[in-house]
Amino acid sequence: MKSVKQVVYFFFFVHILFSSAVNANGNWRTLNPENTVLMTLPHGKVVIELAPQFSPLHVQQFSKLVKAGHYDGNKFYRVIDGFVAQGGPEDGSAKDKAVPILNIEGEWTTDKEWSFTKVQENDLFAEQTGFKDGFAIGYNPSEKAAWLTHCPGTIAMARGNEADSASSHFYIPNGQALRYLDRIMTIFGRVVFGMEHIQAIKRTSVIEGQSAVDARDFTPVVNMQMMSDVPKEQQIIIEVENTETKAFTEKLVDRRKRDNPFFYKKPLPVLDVCQVPLKTRLVK
Amino acid sequence: MKSVKQVVYFFFFVHILFSSAVNANGNWRTLNPENTVLMTLPHGKVVIELAPQFSPLHVQQFSKLVKAGHYDGNKFYRVIDGFVAQGGPEDGSAKDKAVPILNIEGEWTTDKEWSFTKVQENDLFAEQTGFKDGFAIGYNPSEKAAWLTHCPGTIAMARGNEADSASSHFYIPNGQALRYLDRIMTIFGRVVFGMEHIQAIKRTSVIEGQSAVDARDFTPVVNMQMMSDVPKEQQIIIEVENTETKAFTEKLVDRRKRDNPFFYKKPLPVLDVCQVPLKTRLVK
Repeated sequence: MKSVKQVVYFFFFVHILFSSAVNANGNWRTLNPENTVLMTLPHGKVVIELAPQFSPLHVQQFSKLVKAGHYDGNKFYRVIDGFVAQGGPEDGSAKDKAVPILNIEGEWTTDKEWSFTKVQENDLFAEQTGFKDGFAIGYNPSEKAAWLTHCPGTIAMARGNEADSASSHFYIPNGQALRYLDRIMTIFGRVVFGMEHIQAIKRTSVIEGQSAVDARDFTPVVNMQMMSDVPKEQQIIIEVENTETKAFTEKLVDRRKRDNPFFYKKPLPVLDVCQVPLKTRLVK
Repeated sequence: MKSVKQVVYFFFFVHILFSSAVNANGNWRTLNPENTVLMTLPHGKVVIELAPQFSPLHVQQFSKLVKAGHYDGNKFYRVIDGFVAQGGPEDGSAKDKAVPILNIEGEWTTDKEWSFTKVQENDLFAEQTGFKDGFAIGYNPSEKAAWLTHCPGTIAMARGNEADSASSHFYIPNGQALRYLDRIMTIFGRVVFGMEHIQAIKRTSVIEGQSAVDARDFTPVVNMQMMSDVPKEQQIIIEVENTETKAFTEKLVDRRKRDNPFFYKKPLPVLDVCQVPLKTRLVK
């Protein structure tokens, strides 16, 4: 039989694991530094919130790789305008091959207790869309399936043709949402700060008639660190709008109504889940 | 009665007017330099195709202002991540006030002869979506109404609360499409080259906890010129995929099918009109 001490430790562990999701204070949610990545690019700093509650295996591996310095000095080697900025170690290098292969975590099964903040019914790509813990999701009640959706700024793992073939190469959509990749890729976080620096990453693809981009000009990842490993005085502490509140639901209602005189003719009362900006604020 | 010469001149004039729309050679369409703008930013060059066939008054005024140097030295003073990069003359300045007010050109009425290349039925914001002359459009057959749609990279005129209140301030969506602004704003062109430079424009809005951006750091428009006024050797001549061909329709069919082994499970056979990239190529 487990001792009381062990049970307390267990709940403490669970609390740490999910604290980014439940540490909500009213209308704002403080990101847990253990669950947040600071990516330094030559032209700016980017903060990424990870989503262990949705993609635990990917977050575990990504965090471990970040801590091991796996991404430091990596290049954004596949950057296509209106599509993605993709980075990772040199293809086929020892560093690349040493990373274990991941099982896909593209969607999850919902049960009766499961809830979310609904945004829209009959979206083009999902029966319903909404938010869960600050992440945009698609949800098909008919299939009891929900998934993180490819809005600009989400971070997902690249893979080969097999479902279970991702390792460490990641991509971030930099233009219109890539909704057709939903459910067949693993999204495991999202950019909450510094998206303009992702958009400014040097494009590597060229159009017919243009010279190829020299690989020496590719944008590097200077380094990635778990925010909790960054010296206190250099940490960027972010709060994001809590999507599990009455205030947020009311914001959605308002946004749908467009009750501002600027809308001299009202648009259709529908919302694209990837065009519902979440507020963020800088604590320090 | 008109002389043959007059008739020939008339058709020549019509040809010049619409040549960007009809000068299609097979699967590519050469942009007319009279109808193309070169915007030089400190960090790169951007090419914009204008849409006189949809928004004649706005294109006429914008072209005239470009030729008059109205935008040279203007600042991008309202740049919000995931929303727009907006530029124009100093608010309330003599230069600003001197510009005539425009009547809105947010949509047009279709007749029986009107045709387009259909992309999708039952889109969230339109009964149908598609392309016309290389521009993404929404179309409601029930209303006989069609309109240019706010995909990333379109250029539109800002306005006050009144429908007919635009003058010279323009914006370019820099993130997820702003479909809720369709039909109540005037889109008059789109970025066909250099979109990464639009995305890299310095953000002017800050989040709570951040210091305001000094107006001296706002990104300027170095200058704008009609491509036809640029010295030949500095012109950027672009061709874009012709959206009025059988080949393009077949490309849409293929894109919907996702018949590549990468799609180990097929996504829904639907297309977001703003996530159908059009090919471009550089002629010189």
